[in-house]
Amino acid sequence: MSVKETVEVTGHLMDSGILSRILDDIREYGGDWVITNIDVGHEAAHTSTATINLTAEDDESLQRLLMRLQTRGVNQVHPGEASIAQADRDGVFPDGFYSTTNLATKVRLEGRWLDVENPEMDCGLVVDLENDTATRIRTLPMSDVRADMWVVTGAAGIRVDIPVLDKGSDFGFMESDVSSEKPQAVLVRQVADGMREAKAHGKKVLWVGGPGVVHTGAAPAMVAMVDAGFVDVLFAGNALATHDIESSLYGTSLGVDLSHGHGVEHGHEHHIRALNTIRKEGSIRAAVESGVLTGGIMHALVKHDKEFVLVGSVRDDGPLPDVHTDVIVGQRAMRGALTDVGFCLMVATMLHSVATGNILPASIPLVCVDINPATVTKLADRGSSQARGIVTDVGLFLEQLARELVPDYRRP
Amino acid sequence: MSVKETVEVTGHLMDSGILSRILDDIREYGGDWVITNIDVGHEAAHTSTATINLTAEDDESLQRLLMRLQTRGVNQVHPGEASIAQADRDGVFPDGFYSTTNLATKVRLEGRWLDVENPEMDCGLVVDLENDTATRIRTLPMSDVRADMWVVTGAAGIRVDIPVLDKGSDFGFMESDVSSEKPQAVLVRQVADGMREAKAHGKKVLWVGGPGVVHTGAAPAMVAMVDAGFVDVLFAGNALATHDIESSLYGTSLGVDLSHGHGVEHGHEHHIRALNTIRKEGSIRAAVESGVLTGGIMHALVKHDKEFVLVGSVRDDGPLPDVHTDVIVGQRAMRGALTDVGFCLMVATMLHSVATGNILPASIPLVCVDINPATVTKLADRGSSQARGIVTDVGLFLEQLARELVPDYRRP
Amino acid sequence: MSVKETVEVTGHLMDSGILSRILDDIREYGGDWVITNIDVGHEAAHTSTATINLTAEDDESLQRLLMRLQTRGVNQVHPGEASIAQADRDGVFPDGFYSTTNLATKVRLEGRWLDVENPEMDCGLVVDLENDTATRIRTLPMSDVRADMWVVTGAAGIRVDIPVLDKGSDFGFMESDVSSEKPQAVLVRQVADGMREAKAHGKKVLWVGGPGVVHTGAAPAMVAMVDAGFVDVLFAGNALATHDIESSLYGTSLGVDLSHGHGVEHGHEHHIRALNTIRKEGSIRAAVESGVLTGGIMHALVKHDKEFVLVGSVRDDGPLPDVHTDVIVGQRAMRGALTDVGFCLMVATMLHSVATGNILPASIPLVCVDINPATVTKLADRGSSQARGIVTDVGLFLEQLARELVPDYRRP
Amino acid sequence: MSVKETVEVTGHLMDSGILSRILDDIREYGGDWVITNIDVGHEAAHTSTATINLTAEDDESLQRLLMRLQTRGVNQVHPGEASIAQADRDGVFPDGFYSTTNLATKVRLEGRWLDVENPEMDCGLVVDLENDTATRIRTLPMSDVRADMWVVTGAAGIRVDIPVLDKGSDFGFMESDVSSEKPQAVLVRQVADGMREAKAHGKKVLWVGGPGVVHTGAAPAMVAMVDAGFVDVLFAGNALATHDIESSLYGTSLGVDLSHGHGVEHGHEHHIRALNTIRKEGSIRAAVESGVLTGGIMHALVKHDKEFVLVGSVRDDGPLPDVHTDVIVGQRAMRGALTDVGFCLMVATMLHSVATGNILPASIPLVCVDINPATVTKLADRGSSQARGIVTDVGLFLEQLARELVPDYRRP
Repeated sequence: MSVKETVEVTGHLMDSGILSRILDDIREYGGDWVITNIDVGHEAAHTSTATINLTAEDDESLQRLLMRLQTRGVNQVHPGEASIAQADRDGVFPDGFYSTTNLATKVRLEGRWLDVENPEMDCGLVVDLENDTATRIRTLPMSDVRADMWVVTGAAGIRVDIPVLDKGSDFGFMESDVSSEKPQAVLVRQVADGMREAKAHGKKVLWVGGPGVVHTGAAPAMVAMVDAGFVDVLFAGNALATHDIESSLYGTSLGVDLSHGHGVEHGHEHHIRALNTIRKEGSIRAAVESGVLTGGIMHALVKHDKEFVLVGSVRDDGPLPDVHTDVIVGQRAMRGALTDVGFCLMVATMLHSVATGNILPASIPLVCVDINPATVTKLADRGSSQARGIVTDVGLFLEQLARELVPDYRRP
Repeated sequence: MSVKETVEVTGHLMDSGILSRILDDIREYGGDWVITNIDVGHEAAHTSTATINLTAEDDESLQRLLMRLQTRGVNQVHPGEASIAQADRDGVFPDGFYSTTNLATKVRLEGRWLDVENPEMDCGLVVDLENDTATRIRTLPMSDVRADMWVVTGAAGIRVDIPVLDKGSDFGFMESDVSSEKPQAVLVRQVADGMREAKAHGKKVLWVGGPGVVHTGAAPAMVAMVDAGFVDVLFAGNALATHDIESSLYGTSLGVDLSHGHGVEHGHEHHIRALNTIRKEGSIRAAVESGVLTGGIMHALVKHDKEFVLVGSVRDDGPLPDVHTDVIVGQRAMRGALTDVGFCLMVATMLHSVATGNILPASIPLVCVDINPATVTKLADRGSSQARGIVTDVGLFLEQLARELVPDYRRP
Repeated sequence: MSVKETVEVTGHLMDSGILSRILDDIREYGGDWVITNIDVGHEAAHTSTATINLTAEDDESLQRLLMRLQTRGVNQVHPGEASIAQADRDGVFPDGFYSTTNLATKVRLEGRWLDVENPEMDCGLVVDLENDTATRIRTLPMSDVRADMWVVTGAAGIRVDIPVLDKGSDFGFMESDVSSEKPQAVLVRQVADGMREAKAHGKKVLWVGGPGVVHTGAAPAMVAMVDAGFVDVLFAGNALATHDIESSLYGTSLGVDLSHGHGVEHGHEHHIRALNTIRKEGSIRAAVESGVLTGGIMHALVKHDKEFVLVGSVRDDGPLPDVHTDVIVGQRAMRGALTDVGFCLMVATMLHSVATGNILPASIPLVCVDINPATVTKLADRGSSQARGIVTDVGLFLEQLARELVPDYRRP
Repeated sequence: MSVKETVEVTGHLMDSGILSRILDDIREYGGDWVITNIDVGHEAAHTSTATINLTAEDDESLQRLLMRLQTRGVNQVHPGEASIAQADRDGVFPDGFYSTTNLATKVRLEGRWLDVENPEMDCGLVVDLENDTATRIRTLPMSDVRADMWVVTGAAGIRVDIPVLDKGSDFGFMESDVSSEKPQAVLVRQVADGMREAKAHGKKVLWVGGPGVVHTGAAPAMVAMVDAGFVDVLFAGNALATHDIESSLYGTSLGVDLSHGHGVEHGHEHHIRALNTIRKEGSIRAAVESGVLTGGIMHALVKHDKEFVLVGSVRDDGPLPDVHTDVIVGQRAMRGALTDVGFCLMVATMLHSVATGNILPASIPLVCVDINPATVTKLADRGSSQARGIVTDVGLFLEQLARELVPDYRRP
């Protein structure tokens, strides 16, 4: 064990559990540590800074550990200069590429710190050079890298910043613990506050939804929130849109008669016919314009010119003509729709929640609602440390959220 | 295989799945069957009757199979006369005692059919004799039998009747399938209908609740329903009452600050102090009367002179002075409070739900609400075939139920 | 209500619950019924036939009901002749197209019954005509239909057959109930029997797996079963393969150190580096051949020339070069790999299990293993009525299965 | 806010998350803090000490906060002398009584520190006085206090010590995270190591079990571990013992035929008859001695003269004659059996796990195994901070544990 490095981290170190996670990481990566300094003496509301001396077995281990620790907001005290290397084929990063976090990131090249344009986790950092001078640095997923692009390697010359939650604000105060034994009505209000705050700052609200939104009878509540301007972008799969459309065309969703609450398990021909109907029209928008589709969530989004990105999955029937069947193309469309998003609500979908968590900067507040605790914890485990989870009934939650956000909302 | 018997069953045999469960039972018990007759030709709404020839290995197997089948409402075509035997010690039934179902039951003794007074599953049938003539037959749990009591043995001379659900009524139409992907708002309305129907017939509404009622912030909703007369009897443990009282005294429940939704995991001294406070007063009623306890569910029950039965468990702290620490004594108190109950709602408790399911006649409609599907299915598996389950968030469910039942209810 | 039709169904009607599901369907679809005949009088092991008179509101409702009932194996007594219509554009079926089941299906055209080649649910039936005579009928998913193809419309002229489970065989006897409170060791043996039976008949064993196979430490057990010839085809996503390869390259899976059982939540750079490494090699096979990949499940499959189909999802990083990023192309590849499959085991994946259930004929035995009961019940709810579920720990289950199937297997 | 106090805590503050939980508690209790000192500069393996200045609104709040913080191992720098007060009636503590933690505790009276004899959470501290001098201090539950006993009040004069986990040992290194996606086979080995270590130090192994042990077919594995000396004490309810005995007498458990894995949902008369049979014998031991009970877990415990404490619950049938029907009496019996316990394994029971967690000192290692993550997390939330959880299949886990602990164990 002979390689050493000094790192530092600033934040609510004492009361956020972040320090213990940092030290756990060091141990997991086979390293060792001495904390040489922690700020003490100030009030609870202030942030502290800790300085840590790391020891690792060899340089490769150290570089990995440093990259790992950056996901926690830990930077080198003497970051030095970033190294770059050229990709030698499409879709493959150079060896030792720097693997990104979703935190705000700076890269030091030739003595200057450049901001990374679009923080996203698990990407590489591509440097645009003009006359050998870096003009721009952006994250790029592995599949999009092209031969000859310049890519940052190693952990040197990189700084990240963890967002500091404002524990005074109602939303910032939301707990990270996941439990179904919480007073959910209070949490509804906190989510509504987060959305109103985002809108007040001119930001967009992004929804990520699964078919459970429709099955649980929450489509009317969601339509009311689209109408009231609280749904700017929707990320979903083929299922949510198909069941919503099936429900508008036939009054059922996957065979469940939504007005009586009972149902056949899989009224298969309804959803297949709904798919065929929209495919015949050419697109969801075309079906709205031709008067074939007259209600539901997708109809409301089209009517209000809101954006939606539907990405397919291997279990899809159909799919709807609007669905991206290539998942990499779909991911690109999702990235393209993130501009100005200031709040994200994920409801009843593990697949699309994790997919969105992968590409969302850590600075955007994120709430995940599901009746299954595993969905909610998965997201935080995957690196979306800003995620707040609510384990509750999706249908009743959206009903309450609509009552909170839309004063004259009444269940039809 | 040489012992045979002919049995029959009447009900919605075709569309309730009951016939397949009957035949599964026969197979499980090592028997064999030939269906010799089923009514056909009539409308969907009518009941049918099936006649089945059973074969079993020996008489003991046959007797057990017949008892088992009675839990499904299957009777012998030629029931004959019941046999009785005398218990020879306290707390022990005679060998071969008839083990009861929770169905309406008749016993034939000396040519007369007598009604069993209080159907309850897993009991024995005790016969009161006057001058060698049976005057009364009632169920009795094993622990309550006394030496010299006369007890029915074997399956002969016994008839049961399955309640026929009215599939036309809104409540009767409630599905037995358990799923969190159901439009729960519709189910709320069906439960409200069931309660209103019971009250309209002069019956009582029994609630069985766990501490989750308080943790999820639903106490104000439940208080509103107590005030409005929709809670006549409450069965619970030490936990619901203690957390309710803790919440009234300190504004927390198990350390969760209910108005902000965040909390320490276990604010232990609050619940311990709440227990000590009530123990000092002597009882919950005394604490209400002395002005120590001024709000919450237990306060509302006392104020309206509603009955509650609290039965302890091995994990209890305290407990409250009103808690039956002897579980057998507690079961007796619960039995005593079942008179005139016409609807039962179980919320957020597996232990007390199963306990209540054990003693409740099958004729009383029963809805079980929990966020954990296992709680909901357990009940039906244990023999409460009339149970309907709703997998949802308890707090939001009770909030909606209060809005449905109490027109002017507003969340405080 | 004036449209009528007479249908019949043959099977273990009495003891399988199938009849009640049929009658539920009729009610859900707004129809009515009179059962005019049921076979009685024979032994438990024999199948029965029921004849049912249906009434529906109008012809369209009737056609839908008839299609729905065919998913249960119900056929018209007088099926008549099938109608066909031409698709008038790519990817869209003609109005009123017949929506398929996954049951063995026959179509009557010009007085002759033709077998449908590859039963699959939620498809259309495409008829190949030569000189106006049908020579071949096959299922085709909506996205693959081309303009001018002839497609069966309506429910006339179609017969399906439900597979009759042999309740005498050990595997056939496996229960459809899902519970974690079952003696799982017995179920392991039943699954092993099902696999051995398939292999004895010269059939292939298809595995469908999620990343949990690797996280739970079961990769060595699965490798042993690949080596022993019990894994002929694998369907999975990017995650299983990446975590397996990550584990071989670095000894971790998603950051969990598999030999100590503890882990960082998301050791992100490991899996990203594993992806980059294989992308550099060009394919998994190339990585095996170049000596870069020397162990794990994917290595074992390559070594034994076993087939694997990896289909991407929207949450994928990378992905591996072998992954189909277009899900429709991926579905086609899966269909292509179903030939000669005689048993299917699904482990730790809801997405790929449902996707496989969608394309698998009902005649192929299917077992789904997951620690989450919802995954297991979802499959049956989606129409894979032959599915048997086991709720258990995936890692320990595969460990036991390897001990059962591979006599000299020892955990490394 | 004018009341202040200085506290300190020693332990693995940096890498255990304990510091953030302490600061969370202060915030929850409405207090404020300044950290005035933390040890830095030493190696990862060493413990640190932090000094914290607390501010609270008033003295009552401060006393409660200090008691709360003691559950985390936080002590006053200047503890002063303890106060005592006399209980003035049976079963009620004096106002302001000190509510205990499950940590090793000392009380300072008249200048001397006395050790508390049996640390247990949520109790009072009773002081035995001889000639006005304290001779002994012990925890006592609220229900056992008697008028005139001397009880410690307030938080002054009390010190607690948190156990320092040896992160070097295999067992100590076990993670506190709960997940079903862990390599469970590794965890089996760590549990086996923990048991062997306890036995090597002459300590007893305590098992706490639910009926799932029997339903999942694990009884033979558990019997093998009883035979091999790895089960010294068993805490359970009526259900585990009854189903175990039912299984020995009839080969079923709650109607599930354990050798075939299928079952009726509730083969009610079997368990009722098993209860009657043992009640007739008078006790489980009597049934073993008379030759009525010849196999199973309870038989093995009797045969090896191992202790078991069965405590009843409100859902019990019967119960067995050995069951304590009064839960307070049952708790006392459990406390009496804790002597020399050095390891505790909890399997498949939430009720008895929480009950045991309530009375177990924090110094005894504790592992909780259940397929339901909620059971596992509940325990830690209730204050058993030493609890380690494993989410897995109980049957397969015990099977593997038996293979690990009993070299010649073979599944029958």
